[in-house]
Amino acid sequence: MRMLINAAERVVADALRGMAQAHPELVVDVEHRVIVRADAPVAGKVGLVSGGGSGHEPLHGGFVGPGMLDAACPGEVFTSPVPDQMVRAAAAVDSGAGVLFVVKNYTGDVLNFDMAAELAEDEGIRIAKVLVRDDVAVEDSTHTAGRRGTGATLFVEKIAGAAAEEGAPLERVTAIARQVADSSLSFGVALGAPATPAKGGPTFDLPPGEIELGIGIHGEPGRERRRMMTSGGIADAAVGVLLDELRPDGPVLALVNGMGATPLLELYGFGAEVRRVLDERGVPVARTLVGNYVTSLDMAGCSVTLCRADEELLRLWDAPVSTPGLRWGR
Amino acid sequence: MRMLINAAERVVADALRGMAQAHPELVVDVEHRVIVRADAPVAGKVGLVSGGGSGHEPLHGGFVGPGMLDAACPGEVFTSPVPDQMVRAAAAVDSGAGVLFVVKNYTGDVLNFDMAAELAEDEGIRIAKVLVRDDVAVEDSTHTAGRRGTGATLFVEKIAGAAAEEGAPLERVTAIARQVADSSLSFGVALGAPATPAKGGPTFDLPPGEIELGIGIHGEPGRERRRMMTSGGIADAAVGVLLDELRPDGPVLALVNGMGATPLLELYGFGAEVRRVLDERGVPVARTLVGNYVTSLDMAGCSVTLCRADEELLRLWDAPVSTPGLRWGR
Repeated sequence: MRMLINAAERVVADALRGMAQAHPELVVDVEHRVIVRADAPVAGKVGLVSGGGSGHEPLHGGFVGPGMLDAACPGEVFTSPVPDQMVRAAAAVDSGAGVLFVVKNYTGDVLNFDMAAELAEDEGIRIAKVLVRDDVAVEDSTHTAGRRGTGATLFVEKIAGAAAEEGAPLERVTAIARQVADSSLSFGVALGAPATPAKGGPTFDLPPGEIELGIGIHGEPGRERRRMMTSGGIADAAVGVLLDELRPDGPVLALVNGMGATPLLELYGFGAEVRRVLDERGVPVARTLVGNYVTSLDMAGCSVTLCRADEELLRLWDAPVSTPGLRWGR
Repeated sequence: MRMLINAAERVVADALRGMAQAHPELVVDVEHRVIVRADAPVAGKVGLVSGGGSGHEPLHGGFVGPGMLDAACPGEVFTSPVPDQMVRAAAAVDSGAGVLFVVKNYTGDVLNFDMAAELAEDEGIRIAKVLVRDDVAVEDSTHTAGRRGTGATLFVEKIAGAAAEEGAPLERVTAIARQVADSSLSFGVALGAPATPAKGGPTFDLPPGEIELGIGIHGEPGRERRRMMTSGGIADAAVGVLLDELRPDGPVLALVNGMGATPLLELYGFGAEVRRVLDERGVPVARTLVGNYVTSLDMAGCSVTLCRADEELLRLWDAPVSTPGLRWGR
C-alpha cells in the first residue's frame, strides 16, 4: 500500500506539526496532542471540546476556531484520545463559564471523556457532556455499544459552537447540543475500504462490484452488502432509512458527506439524488452542506446526515464560523 | 470499479444540479454548463472567468464567488469546455469593465478560450487572457504543448480575483494574474491512478510499491517512476525541483495540495515535510494552504505549488474570499 507518510507511528505527530504551521490562528501542542484556538480562553464563554481517533479529518481538529470548537484532542488513528488530553484541553479553554465535551459514541471515547470529566471537575472546571449517536445503520458494532457517532457531530459542534460564541451559558449550550444530537440521524455507504497506516493496507475486503450499506466511519460492518447501485439507488436507500425513523415535520439540514476518496464531482451528483428523494417525500431542505467533512482516511463512499431544524437551529447554523475545515460569514 | 454515479454520461450534469441546490449564492446553468456568482455582473468590476475539464473540483466551479472567479465553465471529465460556454460566461459577468480569462495550458483549453475571446470581442466585450503553465515536471505532455497548468491556477484565481474585487481595471488585474502565473511552479506525485467514469477504471497502471514523480492532474505521465518513498523523501524531491528553478529571494506562498484520495491527515504531515525542506533551504514561508483543491478525481497523491510573493500579492492573498471551495475573511 502506498501512503504519503514517514512511518505509521509518526503519522499523527507529523500531521499536528503541519497543522501548526498552516494555521497560526491555532495553538497546536504536538507533544500533548491538543489543538486550541489561539484566543482561548475567551472571557465569559463556554468552552467546547471534542476529540476522537485521528483519520476523520477535518473532524475534529479542523473544526477548532471561532464559532465552533475551542479545542480538540486527536487520538492515534482510529483510537480514542486519553483523558489527560481532554483535561488539558478543558483547562486551556475554561474561562470559568464551564466546558461542554462533545463525545462520539464509541466505548473508548465515552470512558475516557467520563474519566476526564471527573478529573477536570476535581480541578474546579464545570463540565457537561453530550453524546452523539446518530448512525441508524446498526444497533451495536465494533467499538460501540449502541449507535455510533458519525456525521451529526459536525452539526452538534457547529450549532452548539455558535450558541457558545454568542455567550449562552453552559446549560443552554448543552441543551442545544442535545437537541441537535437528538434530532439528527446518519447512514453511510462504503464503495471501498480505508487503509490504515498501522495495517499498511485495507481494513476489510469488499468484493469487486459490491458495496456495503450502513458502514461506520472506521470501516466497521454495516447492515448488508449489495451489488453496486447507482447514485440514485444509494440515495433512495439511505434517505429512506433516515426518514422512516426521523419523521421530520418541517425543514431539515442535510450533510452530504464524503468518506475521503470519493471525488467532489460525484458527491455533488449524489447530493442531487439525496435532494430528489427528499423532494419526493415532501421534506423541505433548509441548508445542504456537501464535502469531505467526517471522513474515514481514504475510504471511498459517502454518508447522509439529516437534522430536524427549527428556526433557532438554522439561525445558529448560519452564524459565522472560522475554522480550517468550515468557514462562513453569513 | 465502484463509483458514486448514475451513468458516466450524466456525471457532470448531476454534479451541477447538486451544486445549484447546495449553493444558492451561485447561479448554475445546468443546460449550458456555466456557474456564475449570483450578483454578477458587479457594476464597474472586471469579470474573472475560468474553466476546464471536470474532475478537478473544487477547481474551477468551487472557486466562483466574491473575491475569486465571477464564472466558471466545466467541461466533461478531463475534457475542455467549448467556446459557447466561455462566451456565455463572459456575457454574464461583464459589467463593461472587461473580462479576464484564466486558462490552464492544455491544447483544447487554449484553442477554445482563444476562439471564445474572439467571439466575445465581436459582441463588444473586452477580453484579456492569462495562461497558467506552472508544472515543472515535463516540457510537453499528453494534451499539452509546453508546461501544464496545475496548482498555480488557484493562486492566480485568488489573487487576481482579489484585485478585481477591489476595483482594479482590466490591465492591472491581468498584470497581477501574469505576475502570479510567472512567479509560480508546481510538482505533483501520484501514489495511485485516477479512475474516470467513462473508462470505468484506473487510467494507468502503477505497479505495487511504485510512485510516479511529476504526474499531471489527468494522470498524464510524469518524469519517472520510483520505489515508494517516505513523505519526507517526496518533499525533498518535489521542493528541490521547484526551488532549483524558482530561486525565490523572499517569502513564498505554499499550496500543499491533495489529488483527491490522499487523507487530510497525510497531507498535513506532508506539509510539515515541505516546510522542513523550505526551512533547510532558507526560504521563508509567508502562507501555507493545505487541502484537496486542484484534484484529479480519486487519484492518490499530492502536489506542491510555490509562488514568489511580494507584499502586494500577500495582501491580495489575505483579502476576503467567499466561495464554496475557499473562504476566509481576514
